[in-house]
Amino acid sequence: MNDLMVTFNESLPFDKALHEVDVRGSITFAKALRQLDLLTDKELSEITRGLEAVEKEWADGKFVIHPAVDEDIHTANERRLAELIGPAIAGKLHTGRSRNEQIATDLRLWVRTQLDDLSEQLRTTLAVCAARAKTEIDVLMPGYTHFQRAQPVRFSHWLLSHATYLMGDLQRLHGVRERTNCCPLGVGALSGNPFGIDRTFITKDLGFSSVHPNSLAAVGDRDFVAEILQWSSLLMVHLSRFSEDLIIYSTAEFSFVRVADAYSTGSSLMPQKKNPDSLETIRGKAGRVMGQASGFLSTLKSLPTAYNKDIQESVEPLFDCVKTVSQCLQIATGVLSTLKINSEKMKAALTADMLATDVADYLVVKGVPFRQTHHIAGAVVRKAEEKGVSIAELELPDLKQISPEFEADIVDVFDFERSVERRTAQGGTSRSSVLNQISAIEAHLTGN
Amino acid sequence: MNDLMVTFNESLPFDKALHEVDVRGSITFAKALRQLDLLTDKELSEITRGLEAVEKEWADGKFVIHPAVDEDIHTANERRLAELIGPAIAGKLHTGRSRNEQIATDLRLWVRTQLDDLSEQLRTTLAVCAARAKTEIDVLMPGYTHFQRAQPVRFSHWLLSHATYLMGDLQRLHGVRERTNCCPLGVGALSGNPFGIDRTFITKDLGFSSVHPNSLAAVGDRDFVAEILQWSSLLMVHLSRFSEDLIIYSTAEFSFVRVADAYSTGSSLMPQKKNPDSLETIRGKAGRVMGQASGFLSTLKSLPTAYNKDIQESVEPLFDCVKTVSQCLQIATGVLSTLKINSEKMKAALTADMLATDVADYLVVKGVPFRQTHHIAGAVVRKAEEKGVSIAELELPDLKQISPEFEADIVDVFDFERSVERRTAQGGTSRSSVLNQISAIEAHLTGN
Amino acid sequence: MNDLMVTFNESLPFDKALHEVDVRGSITFAKALRQLDLLTDKELSEITRGLEAVEKEWADGKFVIHPAVDEDIHTANERRLAELIGPAIAGKLHTGRSRNEQIATDLRLWVRTQLDDLSEQLRTTLAVCAARAKTEIDVLMPGYTHFQRAQPVRFSHWLLSHATYLMGDLQRLHGVRERTNCCPLGVGALSGNPFGIDRTFITKDLGFSSVHPNSLAAVGDRDFVAEILQWSSLLMVHLSRFSEDLIIYSTAEFSFVRVADAYSTGSSLMPQKKNPDSLETIRGKAGRVMGQASGFLSTLKSLPTAYNKDIQESVEPLFDCVKTVSQCLQIATGVLSTLKINSEKMKAALTADMLATDVADYLVVKGVPFRQTHHIAGAVVRKAEEKGVSIAELELPDLKQISPEFEADIVDVFDFERSVERRTAQGGTSRSSVLNQISAIEAHLTGN
Amino acid sequence: MNDLMVTFNESLPFDKALHEVDVRGSITFAKALRQLDLLTDKELSEITRGLEAVEKEWADGKFVIHPAVDEDIHTANERRLAELIGPAIAGKLHTGRSRNEQIATDLRLWVRTQLDDLSEQLRTTLAVCAARAKTEIDVLMPGYTHFQRAQPVRFSHWLLSHATYLMGDLQRLHGVRERTNCCPLGVGALSGNPFGIDRTFITKDLGFSSVHPNSLAAVGDRDFVAEILQWSSLLMVHLSRFSEDLIIYSTAEFSFVRVADAYSTGSSLMPQKKNPDSLETIRGKAGRVMGQASGFLSTLKSLPTAYNKDIQESVEPLFDCVKTVSQCLQIATGVLSTLKINSEKMKAALTADMLATDVADYLVVKGVPFRQTHHIAGAVVRKAEEKGVSIAELELPDLKQISPEFEADIVDVFDFERSVERRTAQGGTSRSSVLNQISAIEAHLTGN
Repeated sequence: MNDLMVTFNESLPFDKALHEVDVRGSITFAKALRQLDLLTDKELSEITRGLEAVEKEWADGKFVIHPAVDEDIHTANERRLAELIGPAIAGKLHTGRSRNEQIATDLRLWVRTQLDDLSEQLRTTLAVCAARAKTEIDVLMPGYTHFQRAQPVRFSHWLLSHATYLMGDLQRLHGVRERTNCCPLGVGALSGNPFGIDRTFITKDLGFSSVHPNSLAAVGDRDFVAEILQWSSLLMVHLSRFSEDLIIYSTAEFSFVRVADAYSTGSSLMPQKKNPDSLETIRGKAGRVMGQASGFLSTLKSLPTAYNKDIQESVEPLFDCVKTVSQCLQIATGVLSTLKINSEKMKAALTADMLATDVADYLVVKGVPFRQTHHIAGAVVRKAEEKGVSIAELELPDLKQISPEFEADIVDVFDFERSVERRTAQGGTSRSSVLNQISAIEAHLTGN
Repeated sequence: MNDLMVTFNESLPFDKALHEVDVRGSITFAKALRQLDLLTDKELSEITRGLEAVEKEWADGKFVIHPAVDEDIHTANERRLAELIGPAIAGKLHTGRSRNEQIATDLRLWVRTQLDDLSEQLRTTLAVCAARAKTEIDVLMPGYTHFQRAQPVRFSHWLLSHATYLMGDLQRLHGVRERTNCCPLGVGALSGNPFGIDRTFITKDLGFSSVHPNSLAAVGDRDFVAEILQWSSLLMVHLSRFSEDLIIYSTAEFSFVRVADAYSTGSSLMPQKKNPDSLETIRGKAGRVMGQASGFLSTLKSLPTAYNKDIQESVEPLFDCVKTVSQCLQIATGVLSTLKINSEKMKAALTADMLATDVADYLVVKGVPFRQTHHIAGAVVRKAEEKGVSIAELELPDLKQISPEFEADIVDVFDFERSVERRTAQGGTSRSSVLNQISAIEAHLTGN
Repeated sequence: MNDLMVTFNESLPFDKALHEVDVRGSITFAKALRQLDLLTDKELSEITRGLEAVEKEWADGKFVIHPAVDEDIHTANERRLAELIGPAIAGKLHTGRSRNEQIATDLRLWVRTQLDDLSEQLRTTLAVCAARAKTEIDVLMPGYTHFQRAQPVRFSHWLLSHATYLMGDLQRLHGVRERTNCCPLGVGALSGNPFGIDRTFITKDLGFSSVHPNSLAAVGDRDFVAEILQWSSLLMVHLSRFSEDLIIYSTAEFSFVRVADAYSTGSSLMPQKKNPDSLETIRGKAGRVMGQASGFLSTLKSLPTAYNKDIQESVEPLFDCVKTVSQCLQIATGVLSTLKINSEKMKAALTADMLATDVADYLVVKGVPFRQTHHIAGAVVRKAEEKGVSIAELELPDLKQISPEFEADIVDVFDFERSVERRTAQGGTSRSSVLNQISAIEAHLTGN
Repeated sequence: MNDLMVTFNESLPFDKALHEVDVRGSITFAKALRQLDLLTDKELSEITRGLEAVEKEWADGKFVIHPAVDEDIHTANERRLAELIGPAIAGKLHTGRSRNEQIATDLRLWVRTQLDDLSEQLRTTLAVCAARAKTEIDVLMPGYTHFQRAQPVRFSHWLLSHATYLMGDLQRLHGVRERTNCCPLGVGALSGNPFGIDRTFITKDLGFSSVHPNSLAAVGDRDFVAEILQWSSLLMVHLSRFSEDLIIYSTAEFSFVRVADAYSTGSSLMPQKKNPDSLETIRGKAGRVMGQASGFLSTLKSLPTAYNKDIQESVEPLFDCVKTVSQCLQIATGVLSTLKINSEKMKAALTADMLATDVADYLVVKGVPFRQTHHIAGAVVRKAEEKGVSIAELELPDLKQISPEFEADIVDVFDFERSVERRTAQGGTSRSSVLNQISAIEAHLTGN
């Protein structure tokens, strides 16, 4: 083979991460061969012993790779097994098994564990969100739409808005994990196993939850990779939005929060700088993961059925993606749990014009149709602008001139805490609503 | 406002599709206002009557759009309502409701129905796959990996390999639909409803299955759009792979299938041509949908929380995507149900070298270790090449020279039907395995 | 043909935009047929007259589309021509010409004009940048990295940083336009023209700058579409970055700029709001265009050579993309030319710690190695933090305690204008450097 | 700093590839400092000597990385320099230079060389195309549209259709290289160099062709990365289309070509298989590169001006992309230069119906309007189908029944060589046209 082709074809540099699951899949396969009398008890025990020895070498960092020979983890392990227990018995392990089903099985076994780790990390992030939201329940801040000050909200409410998106990720992950956990082993090269191997046994022995239903599809099925990349993309979008908010909130102009030193860096040229690198990197890596998802779908598109070499391009993006997502989740959790918040600055950013809707609502309660109250409140805002004061500083006569419905109790409207507490409907900013949101998250995290 | 800005800002040209759900959401909202005594019984009945009249105008194609005024479906409907029942009462409908929650609600209501239609169309595709697979159970064809002839399979098995991928889409759709069916109505502009509106009532009245938990998140939450686009991308990848196979199978060189005239086109210059345009268009549109998914994730990336105008870019891709997917599913189903298959051509493409693995398996049964049998079968292939014959035409002495284990019963191996029938393990090519796959799909389609 | 297939196949709803170029290409083609004596003078004159009449119908909005018959602009025009001048002569126009070469030619002719329009609009944007930069040359503001205050810059310098990226777009457009302007007409269905048509004549007559060199490639060559989409993507990235800056700068917290009312919108619920919708929409549409580019490349990937129906998917994205880019450029120009800037707020945001690098530079000039000066300046920043003052307020003895090199002239360092003026190297913030940048842009715009 | 943050932040594992250009940039920068008298002659010579020693350590594989300290190549080199020549002098090298400008400079210097290598490899691919096209000029094969047999073409013409696309890549590369070759060194952290450094000198000394015009833009400008990724995407689309054709052509059913053993692999289970892995891998990697482009644009989108940490995500995709493209070009060239073509099989695939257009053209020459000839030729095809013969086997009376214009000389039409030779217009299939295409490519390759 052409030299560059050898490099092109080699996957050991990255697929060696599969060493443990490769051994595990082979042991199960050997057991299934034993059931068919294609191995004797002795041969099975030799193969098992040998494979465990191979795995121990990997675990101990003692496995010696033969560069010219070991093109992937599967050939490497098989080569070493033959050295340890002799080619006569080792040569039987592969009976009726193809490289393609082995790769597919290994990838699914490996990534299943990764998904469980990601699930755990995501739950930690959510737990920190809930805990922090509980602690900071008293802190008010401006709520923004179009990044313009809109209405006052609790900081906790803002934090839970991000948690809400992450809860969706957790739910989606459940389905992705379920579909990933499907067993392709026992399908042969493409047309099925010719010895009547017991695929239900294999499926159970490896902890899979379902048997892949079609051999032709199974060998080339990388839909689970596509799903994981898509899932990761949306999760990373959520982390990027969380990061964006915090990056802006930590500008000198906002000064709402300060990222802890442990998650910041300095400048080589400007001694006064402290940069939220952690958050920027998360935001940047969202693009990386999105590109992996979109790129891999392009690789899959228009492929003929069954196995085509193109899908080797699933492995590196998958490995890189789960590593990236895991790091980003942990960093985001770290940033959040160490974040310093400046409640004074947030409070100072609350301005009376953010209560204009409350003024309209006040009139609604007095019986004025909403569309009219909206115009009246608009007139109040303009009047205040004209006078160069805040709307809270307008005198009652001024207000009455705009609408006779205004009365002395209007002063109660100009209170941010009351405004926030008025939103008692589900999902609103009142203390009770926010605590309900927290409880719901906590219940979900405990219940699962 | 700047003229171009007006165009830029207008969404009525595409969002008028939401007319019915917009009216429906408003009626429910009015009921909820009634419960709060923000409307009287009479006002509620007026509003309901008026809204139904507006919807009737849309349904009858009689709604007159006011270009300068009706910037989107929500303002259009509200403007018309005011004309029909007077501004005093109409002006109360919007009490405590924001445009943002209205858009979010309408989109979810509308797309929920679309997802149900897509589900139905996908189930039809699957039913046709199952039916066709049953009818053609006797037809053998080459199975390919790397698009090289590998082992014989049943045509039905090939068809079910595509159905397998589509079954995954059906399962995923279930989750997507569930998460889409979440109610944002009653969250206000961003901080919640100030009148204590009953969001559980609203949720039930509109047939949603859950209450959106956070007002800040709810107004800007287009994750359901992202999910639908991602789901559609993977489905379209599957249709593109199905199309690719059939396009190649319908070349003159393969001649395995012929796309019916109803799904083909001719050439303006070459009178003899018949082109599988239907399949090529599906394949091409896969790229379109993938681009919509990747583009919209880019739009979402790094957006601050709550509503930002950027997400208006969710609407057109969503509309176009569900239309495209629906058309492609129907076309694919049509192509499949009218496809002419040429079983003679498929049979003629089966060559004895595709049984080389069976030769190896034959020796395995005789007790030769698999790795050795693989080499022996390789030697058989080479010997046949040397002699210029097929491996089925080699004489026993020739075979015995390669391995003494070969005996007279080797002739039984050189039979494609037997080879296919040998794969009795789950997911394999034997008649019983294939029928099991069909039953499983049928059971799923009936059971749901 | 299947009903849905007809819809699927129809392109007239969007490709009617090509009516003028289709007629133009046909007239040139007829002239070339005349040269070959495949048309008589009379036939040529009839065809020309007929085609001009067809185009007039389009231009006057009087062209009547026959829904069942006119599947695309090419058949529509040909059908109408036959009605006007009779089928005998009209039937000769298509001699040796394929639909595929006609589509390819029309698309290139049409988009060439669009590119020229985009070029003009982009130049206008750049001219406004240059003019505005000149007017505002005196305004200082904080320069940011990592969105943390870093060093003072001129507002003009910031504006020119965006212009710099757009200058790259203008240069790239030149190459894109050149490669688009290549003539496929005369290549037949795939193998070339059988009558020896004069492609050099056709190329010149249609204003193309080169002859497409290979007929097989020419009929399916949509690389120019791919290039335009890629070019647009990068341009939209630039506009999104410009928008992002301005959206943040127009928050209440920054208050550096105010988007004019003509480019803002209000809120349906919050009367005090003014939202920079224009900029958000541009930012959101960047995702749309990026998705079109990435989607279309996916459509092209792995297509066999020559024409495949998949590439019909080039047309809608191309049309939508050029419209989107054109609108965004005009809106961005409008926003910029009407933008109110608040130089007081910008000035107020300049803080003495942004001069820490200048402190280090001061010491460099006194001969202290830079790495040491960086540490000393850091110590100065910390000392000021300890004392709760700005670094400009530290007394000389305090400074001398940190480094004996500090002298009375250090006060000169604490001046933002001087700091900015110190950056006289090319591309820096000094007045002269900024004016040089402006001149370079102006020269380029005038010179081309 | 948090442990994971350290990992997150480290770029040395990948950016050490920049060691040589980093040293080179530093030497030039030191020279420029010397001109400003910020270094003495002795200091400059010490720094130069030290830097060269550092580079020698890298080149000899002797550079010892300090894991906790060397976060990127720039700090690593600076740390080592200080050890070699002492911190007092080494500490002056960084005077007025920021990490950001250093990174930007290094990346551009490094990738410039890579682009030159890619250019060379692409020219080799084109040279092999031209040479092979010349050698195989006599070989005829079916030309396809919609992958249906359309008209006969020369194999060389098919090969040149791919070369045509690659010629576009070569032209585009020229522009990309030109824009990449722009010098950011001397711009400081963001606002310019405060010592009046001579950026024109630096630009020339490093072989750049232009001075980056704006310091704020320069530090965060990764447009050259975006352009390279976009350029690579389109090139990879071309290689994927080339691969797709050859993969199909090398199926047993087509058997037009055979990929050499050096670029094929076998199967672990099926001894008879020979798979075109090389081409499938190229096709798959197209998706990878496309994903890198689309992902990186997403990373760039909506970034504020100047430097943000997000753009560190430019480095790994860029490195991986240029490596991938380089490998794919070399493999594609290798596959092509060793490809076995089976001209007999190609010839056998030419069928008389592919001459139906020639039949129409024959009648055109006899004066029948083309649209009519198209219908007549269609009738000929149908008649042949009815009779179960090829159109070349129809008797003259049969033909005359369809159209009286048919005469005895119609037999001349049924000759594939004549058909191909009839396409003499530029870009056609005639020998002369094909040779002209070859000459044009050769001239371009020699002339540049």
